[in-house]
Amino acid sequence: MAQKPAPDSTRRSEKSRRAIYDAALALVGEVGYPKTTIEGIAARAGVGKQTIYRWWSSKAEVLMEAFIDLGTQAAEAAGGDWAEGSGIPDTGDLETDLKNVLRATVDELNDPRFDAPARALAAEGVANPAFSEEFVGKLLMPSLELYAQRLRAAQDAGQVRADVDPYIARDLFASPLAQRWLQGTGPLDHAYANTLVEYALYGLAPRM
Amino acid sequence: MAQKPAPDSTRRSEKSRRAIYDAALALVGEVGYPKTTIEGIAARAGVGKQTIYRWWSSKAEVLMEAFIDLGTQAAEAAGGDWAEGSGIPDTGDLETDLKNVLRATVDELNDPRFDAPARALAAEGVANPAFSEEFVGKLLMPSLELYAQRLRAAQDAGQVRADVDPYIARDLFASPLAQRWLQGTGPLDHAYANTLVEYALYGLAPRM
Repeated sequence: MAQKPAPDSTRRSEKSRRAIYDAALALVGEVGYPKTTIEGIAARAGVGKQTIYRWWSSKAEVLMEAFIDLGTQAAEAAGGDWAEGSGIPDTGDLETDLKNVLRATVDELNDPRFDAPARALAAEGVANPAFSEEFVGKLLMPSLELYAQRLRAAQDAGQVRADVDPYIARDLFASPLAQRWLQGTGPLDHAYANTLVEYALYGLAPRM
Repeated sequence: MAQKPAPDSTRRSEKSRRAIYDAALALVGEVGYPKTTIEGIAARAGVGKQTIYRWWSSKAEVLMEAFIDLGTQAAEAAGGDWAEGSGIPDTGDLETDLKNVLRATVDELNDPRFDAPARALAAEGVANPAFSEEFVGKLLMPSLELYAQRLRAAQDAGQVRADVDPYIARDLFASPLAQRWLQGTGPLDHAYANTLVEYALYGLAPRM
C-alpha cells in the first residue's frame, strides 16, 4: 500500500500505535472492560502513558480504534475480497453475496483475536446500555447498515419484495449469528450461515 | 390455586422464599452477578444466611429459581394465556400463534422487573461462556425448544417446508428479539415481533 518508505518517526509511531492496539485488545480480553486502564495498556505495550494520551483521550477511544484496525487487518488478510466499510458486494446474486459476507462474519466471530476482546466489550454493553450505545453505534451499526443497503439494492432489482423493511429483514440472518456468538445457543459455522440466508430469502412456509 | 389454608409454617416459608427471590433479583440487577452474595441477598430479604443455605447451595441456584418463579408469575399475570413451560399454543394458525408468543416475549423483555436482573446475568454469560452454559442451558434453551416443537407440528400440518431444520428456523424470529434486547440495535416492540414472523414465514424474495 505504501508508495514510498515512511520517515523514521512515522514508522516508529506506527509501530507504537500497533503495539498499543494489540495491548489494549489483549488486556480487555483478559481482565474485562472495567479493569482495563490506560496505565495497563501502556505497561503492556512497553510505552509511556503519555504516548497514549498524546493520541487518545480515553481507553474507550483506544479500544474503538483498535477494533477498527482489527477489522481492516482481517479484511486485508481475506485478500481484499470484502473490505470492512466498503459495502457488501453486489454481483447481482443476492443469495451468494449474503452467504459470502455471513460466512466471513462467522470466521471473524470465531477468531480468538477478535472473540476475546469483543466479548468483553459486548458483556459491558449488555450490562450498561449507555456504554452499549457508544460501542454498538460506532462498531456494530455501520456493519448492519451495509446489509440494509444491499437489501435495498436487491429491492430495486426486484429480488426482494418492495414492501419489506430492510432494517428488519437484515435481522433475520444477522441477529442469529449475534445470538449464537453472545449466548452460545448453538454452533456458529458456515453451514448455519448459508441456511439462514436461504430460509430468510425463501421463507419457512411452502412456496406453491 | 390453594384449596385449603396452608399451615402457618408453610406460609411463613413461602413468604421468606418470595422475599429471597425478590432480594436476589433486585440485587443482581443493581450490582451485577459477581458482586451478588448470599450474605447480601439475606440482608436485603431480612432473613438469616442460614435460611438461604437451608434451601439452596449457591447464589446461582437462588437466582435460577428466582427467574423461573418470575416467569411463572408473568404467565399467571397474563391470565394463563401462555403458561411458561407449557408449550406454544397450537390453534392451527402458525402465524398467529408465533406472533402471540413473540409479543408476550417483547413485553417480558421490556418489563423492568425482568430486564435488570436478566441483563446482569446475560452480561455475565457473554463474558464467561462456562457460566453462560449453565444459565442459558437452564433458562433460555427450554423456551427456544418450544419454538422448535411448534415448528415441527407445523411441518406435520404442511405449513412449514418439510426440509426445514426447526432449530435453525426458530432463530429467524427469536434471535432478532434477543439481539435488540442485548445490544439495543433497534426498538423492541409488538410491530417488530409481528413483522419478523411474517418475513420468516413468507420470505424476503417475491412469491410468484
